[in-house]
Amino acid sequence: MTFQIRRLSTADYPLVISVMDQWWGGRPMADKLPRLFFEHFTDTSFAAERDGKLAGFLTGFISQSRPGEAYIHFVGVDPAERGSGLGRQLYAAFFAAAEARGCVLVRVVTSPVNRDSIAFHQRMGFQLESGDAQVDGIPVSSGYDGHGGDRVRFIRSLRGALPTRRAQRRAISMAAR
Amino acid sequence: MTFQIRRLSTADYPLVISVMDQWWGGRPMADKLPRLFFEHFTDTSFAAERDGKLAGFLTGFISQSRPGEAYIHFVGVDPAERGSGLGRQLYAAFFAAAEARGCVLVRVVTSPVNRDSIAFHQRMGFQLESGDAQVDGIPVSSGYDGHGGDRVRFIRSLRGALPTRRAQRRAISMAAR
Repeated sequence: MTFQIRRLSTADYPLVISVMDQWWGGRPMADKLPRLFFEHFTDTSFAAERDGKLAGFLTGFISQSRPGEAYIHFVGVDPAERGSGLGRQLYAAFFAAAEARGCVLVRVVTSPVNRDSIAFHQRMGFQLESGDAQVDGIPVSSGYDGHGGDRVRFIRSLRGALPTRRAQRRAISMAAR
Repeated sequence: MTFQIRRLSTADYPLVISVMDQWWGGRPMADKLPRLFFEHFTDTSFAAERDGKLAGFLTGFISQSRPGEAYIHFVGVDPAERGSGLGRQLYAAFFAAAEARGCVLVRVVTSPVNRDSIAFHQRMGFQLESGDAQVDGIPVSSGYDGHGGDRVRFIRSLRGALPTRRAQRRAISMAAR
């Protein structure tokens, strides 16, 4: 049971949209993923196939205004393929692409209701960022996205220890010049 | 009646979200603009203020995987400030930022129902891209975004004539190596 992991292409968009809501357990997700991610960030986004059938995808990008940072926007795995290690393989592909482009850290946010996603990111070596509230012991940033969309924020180093906040601020201020 | 145009910052996000749906005439738009655009693309995104009050904003980015392309994702102007030339000023700021980063063309999509937006882009020198349907004589790409979200696609050169399709394909294929 091996997966083919390749770069995402614009042609994948209709299929991904057609499966998304089902893959997220009926939550209406498709409108949160505009086509632009399949057009302008394909070199750090991936599709996974098994026997020619879409098994998962990841869309991510290199931060344009925060040097050294990469961001994972959406990751989906066919419910029938869960537990196969595919999520881990998609993340590994993204980490390698981000590191090859000089990134030292990866950020991702998830929903507090998505306990599987929270547990997955903890297993993948992500650290929880602080929030302004707590849900079941997990720090949550309330009203983070859109109208009151609470989010759990994660960060992961690509090179051992995370850079200090001071080093991050310095890199941002250098880039703004 | 002059506007201050400055780079967008993460701190602008809650205010923009709070006004968006009203600025779009009651259409629920806020969920289409996640915070990531206010964190990772601030060097090509702008806020406009008059007397310290938010009058408009533009979020855009440089395409990561299509060399020479820039993309405008969301532009909003306070209804009370329309007709003032602010949209034109925001676009000019974006064009200058994109050109300074080596871009030769800008893409944008809008909704077929948004006739003001279509007319604005035509006045700003954008050309209509072909579609697979027509609405009131305007070419429309059906099912472009999300579930059946029809879109009108625009393209504008930053340096006189648009590059040929062949030159665009060549640039993409070079970058993919």
